[in-house]
Amino acid sequence: MTQISDTVDYIGGRTRLYGIVGHPIEQVRSPEMFTAEFRRRERDAILVPLHVLPNDFDETLPALMRLHNLDGLVFTIPYKVRACALAGELGVQAQRVGAINALARGVDGRWRGEIFDGLGCVEAFRRRGMSLVGQRIALIGTGGAGAAVGMAIAGEGPRSMRLHDLDRGRAEALAARVRAAPPAVDVVVAPPSIEDADVLLNVSPVGMLGDARLPVEVDSLPARLIVFDAVVKPERTPLIELAAACGCATVVGREMMRGQVSRMVDFFLSGGADAA
Amino acid sequence: MTQISDTVDYIGGRTRLYGIVGHPIEQVRSPEMFTAEFRRRERDAILVPLHVLPNDFDETLPALMRLHNLDGLVFTIPYKVRACALAGELGVQAQRVGAINALARGVDGRWRGEIFDGLGCVEAFRRRGMSLVGQRIALIGTGGAGAAVGMAIAGEGPRSMRLHDLDRGRAEALAARVRAAPPAVDVVVAPPSIEDADVLLNVSPVGMLGDARLPVEVDSLPARLIVFDAVVKPERTPLIELAAACGCATVVGREMMRGQVSRMVDFFLSGGADAA
Repeated sequence: MTQISDTVDYIGGRTRLYGIVGHPIEQVRSPEMFTAEFRRRERDAILVPLHVLPNDFDETLPALMRLHNLDGLVFTIPYKVRACALAGELGVQAQRVGAINALARGVDGRWRGEIFDGLGCVEAFRRRGMSLVGQRIALIGTGGAGAAVGMAIAGEGPRSMRLHDLDRGRAEALAARVRAAPPAVDVVVAPPSIEDADVLLNVSPVGMLGDARLPVEVDSLPARLIVFDAVVKPERTPLIELAAACGCATVVGREMMRGQVSRMVDFFLSGGADAA
Repeated sequence: MTQISDTVDYIGGRTRLYGIVGHPIEQVRSPEMFTAEFRRRERDAILVPLHVLPNDFDETLPALMRLHNLDGLVFTIPYKVRACALAGELGVQAQRVGAINALARGVDGRWRGEIFDGLGCVEAFRRRGMSLVGQRIALIGTGGAGAAVGMAIAGEGPRSMRLHDLDRGRAEALAARVRAAPPAVDVVVAPPSIEDADVLLNVSPVGMLGDARLPVEVDSLPARLIVFDAVVKPERTPLIELAAACGCATVVGREMMRGQVSRMVDFFLSGGADAA
């Protein structure tokens, strides 16, 4: 809390609006992180939570995009794939993944979509000095964010990837995309095997908010395993707690977000010109 | 500016949204004033500017009202009359005036509309110790806000009211409403006459932002005249500057707003139960 007065200094009639669209919305960290990044860059802008119910998405989003002072939207679960249809133009990553998490209004009024999840995850590993080259990857969750993470990790040259999703067709689709793009990676669709993996990534919503479940049925994890969880709230999910207890190195969703936020604000402020 | 850090403390995933809808939007003061009032009451809520173009209003507003974390809207020029159609229920003032400036989502999901402009204006005079009883009133502008101010002032028991609007039909309609409601007031529709007035009120947009015009064609004002201008940006309009130069007592739009904000936040937080 800052001072209590007749007015506040962080919102006004000229403030440019950005929003994060999701369902549920309470768990998102984008409002505080993007707004801080806009502030760091001395922009009069704010990112607010926009709780859109699935049945309202098709009518509400075009209406939001007509708000004259709204310049960009972030998409989270369950809208990353569905939001593609809103973009007049898709960036390279978004075309590969078939999902977006950012939509920017261009100076020409055209909306450009791109996905930064995968780049953010790879960046988080890089910042921790953990190479993905030659590693055996187990990826759980191949929806919008999971597919983005999968494509970006595949681009780093791992030895193999094992993909799992409750919707098997979605995992197969990602496997096909990974096979189609260089470099060559050995990909299978199968439940995660802790014994045969070097890096375990959860990009499913399991463990979010009060969810006490693990995304994989195990009692312990081998200490050599690197464990990543994309869930940002709570910062320490049941999976991350178990991994830490077992002596594994862990990378959390918040680390992925930090790298993303800066790249996404570049994207927004350039009207979608600085796509990944 | 507070500290610059990784996050800010005034917006998050749980923040409840309110918006002010207008065209133009840059001049509005509601975002900083309402947000400060929410903060004073320790509510995690923010009011943001929503710039809706006239052609988009009918499609955009119902969509905004479906946002699951949006609890209320404020309406400003040119939407106070048009917004009535959005309310499932109208408060007493709104029914009299035929306009709303607040729309609150009730706990039952029903939207309730009310107008607080008039009450805010009367409250501003009261706080300054200026009685309207027995006064000769000249009112310029009888749109949504002007009608609300006219009805509320009529309720204070002035001696006479002279109403003026570029749209004469609008002024006639307000005159009819004033005549129909107690107490009895002598009302005419005519251009303002400085000589025959004790209180001059501008509730038209003349003088807003860079507009250098006066709402009345005069070179000077009698010092005994009390001059009110509902325009909030700039705080000192050409009319207020002239009045001050001529020795008139002045009441500005910001004073009207202060009283309103508190009443409107009561209205929002009660889901429209605390109508005027």
